[in-house]
Amino acid sequence: MMDKHYMNIAIELARVTQGQTTPNPVVGSVIVKNNQIVGMGAHLKAGEEHAERHALKMAGDKAKGATMYVTLEPCSHYGRTSPCADAVIEAGIKKVVVASLDLNPRVAGRGIQKLMDAGITVETGVMEKEAVKLNRVFFHYIKTKKPFVTLKTATSLDGKIATVSGESQWITGEEARLDVQHLRHTHDAILVGVNTVLLDNPSLTTRIGEGGSNPIRIVLDHQLRTPLDANIVIDKKSPTWIVTKRQTEKGKKLKLEELGVEIIEMDSDEIHISELLIMLGQREISSLLVEGGGTVNDAFLRSGDFQQVIVYLAPTIIGGKEALSSFSGLGIAKLKNTPKLNIESITTIGKDIKMILSKGD
Amino acid sequence: MMDKHYMNIAIELARVTQGQTTPNPVVGSVIVKNNQIVGMGAHLKAGEEHAERHALKMAGDKAKGATMYVTLEPCSHYGRTSPCADAVIEAGIKKVVVASLDLNPRVAGRGIQKLMDAGITVETGVMEKEAVKLNRVFFHYIKTKKPFVTLKTATSLDGKIATVSGESQWITGEEARLDVQHLRHTHDAILVGVNTVLLDNPSLTTRIGEGGSNPIRIVLDHQLRTPLDANIVIDKKSPTWIVTKRQTEKGKKLKLEELGVEIIEMDSDEIHISELLIMLGQREISSLLVEGGGTVNDAFLRSGDFQQVIVYLAPTIIGGKEALSSFSGLGIAKLKNTPKLNIESITTIGKDIKMILSKGD
Repeated sequence: MMDKHYMNIAIELARVTQGQTTPNPVVGSVIVKNNQIVGMGAHLKAGEEHAERHALKMAGDKAKGATMYVTLEPCSHYGRTSPCADAVIEAGIKKVVVASLDLNPRVAGRGIQKLMDAGITVETGVMEKEAVKLNRVFFHYIKTKKPFVTLKTATSLDGKIATVSGESQWITGEEARLDVQHLRHTHDAILVGVNTVLLDNPSLTTRIGEGGSNPIRIVLDHQLRTPLDANIVIDKKSPTWIVTKRQTEKGKKLKLEELGVEIIEMDSDEIHISELLIMLGQREISSLLVEGGGTVNDAFLRSGDFQQVIVYLAPTIIGGKEALSSFSGLGIAKLKNTPKLNIESITTIGKDIKMILSKGD
Repeated sequence: MMDKHYMNIAIELARVTQGQTTPNPVVGSVIVKNNQIVGMGAHLKAGEEHAERHALKMAGDKAKGATMYVTLEPCSHYGRTSPCADAVIEAGIKKVVVASLDLNPRVAGRGIQKLMDAGITVETGVMEKEAVKLNRVFFHYIKTKKPFVTLKTATSLDGKIATVSGESQWITGEEARLDVQHLRHTHDAILVGVNTVLLDNPSLTTRIGEGGSNPIRIVLDHQLRTPLDANIVIDKKSPTWIVTKRQTEKGKKLKLEELGVEIIEMDSDEIHISELLIMLGQREISSLLVEGGGTVNDAFLRSGDFQQVIVYLAPTIIGGKEALSSFSGLGIAKLKNTPKLNIESITTIGKDIKMILSKGD
């Protein structure tokens, strides 16, 4: 029972660092001796110290004979830092309680083995589900070598992203739009279709103040219609990649490249979502935020290649047969083939509603 | 403070009878003496005793010198029962606490005046907002002489009521559909467009077991296309009204009438929602549940003639530019003209999400 209590603290320590540790997982650790917390730590940033080391440092001599709670199996390999398992052994920790094993094939069970070999009692699986969820982006990427994909829409109650006359700014309120900025901050890359670039000329940056990190901007653009003076081409605030089909005419491509845009030609006459994601995985994009519009969203829907949906709903109705919906391509013809999503949370944000739904892989 | 406590009990007593008192309002009453509840009552059914009388009966002699809490001003006129104000005076009640005044011009302040004339202390406005909300259908009808209109939709997260291939059964789950049956039970009438009749051939009845009351079924049908063998024509489970424009050809009309359907011809070449609602008000329809489809919903949206929206959302995405949305007529062209709705509640029901939103009159 106390195990769950302390592990929950470790999980909270990990949770607050979500979005700043990529490509590393978030990890939290708590060291307990005689039911007193003697050390706490979290991994803050890739390349910096791991959670266990921060906690050990805080505990100092008190680590001797103490129990360590850690949300992820301690590492046993030399990466950018020396193995945590070694540090745990050296500090004289008596027992280690682990929430989830690492899926990284370089770690996977070896950290635990090393601890046990040194005579440390190891318990695993405490609050495993919560810990796995915390790093689901990381685990998904490790397992599939493709980015964890989140589809984000912002619509009226009837699913519209614009009125019949094309008005789209703004359907949701300021708070919801700020929340999207936070979403961008926690993703490696953001993806839109060229129509969104042509219609809205967005900059797709994170405007949350100092330290907000800008994801790589990816545009799906079969015909290379992205204007040379588009914000994402000229503002240099973050890399812009344009993904296109095999090009025969090279003029526009060269011009965009001169302006610093990277053009990625897929080896076919069409952009297949599954191939796109394999390519992005190879380029170390572990999380992708898809911000539509309707055609791109619909392509992801049909491919089934997404893990999470975030829906912002404004408490209004737009109506109109010809008004654009959030998923407006070919759609899914049979109800039995539509994705079954799990409701993770429903909250209000400003005057709007925010729903997070997840899909099994 | 205790006033709020006891009034809250009276409000709960009223709340549980919602849907069974029409065309009367719901009313609850609690009688308190020395901080002991000595009587409780609610109005159960039009034509039967009012809440105050039930509570007085329970209190018996203890009513003498006690305080009565009642959610609606006691009546002072002879209706189907003799005035409650008289009964309150006769029982020797010392103080009456009232949540909301009656809007019915035959009562409006007169009940309170009568109590005060008899030397009873009267306090008004305690939890007025909650009490008014409880009878908002009743108050709306009294004030506007038009039914309180609820638009109900059941869609995927992207607002679709069918797939591109026309599949629509079922998008929401069993629990949500049962909840719609309860909604029907609490409405005087239910309205659909003829397309819904042609596509789904629904019976539009309340299937909640014994005592479920079936609302009057209203079909908007410009061309009298309702089939003679439609369920709503032949099942005789509840009256069916077909509202149509001015008809020149009388053949189909006579045939439907022979089958027991009432045909209501509007005096114009089009059915205007506002005129429709005036007509329904004259026919004593105080609450109307609009169950679409898309064209009818859109007509109500554009007219602005609705007070409440109930949205059932299935946690899935259907997609498709050509898939029908819940509001699919002309829509509203300018975002600033879309209705600003207030979120009353968001709950999960089975696997689905239910949202209730209200619109000011």
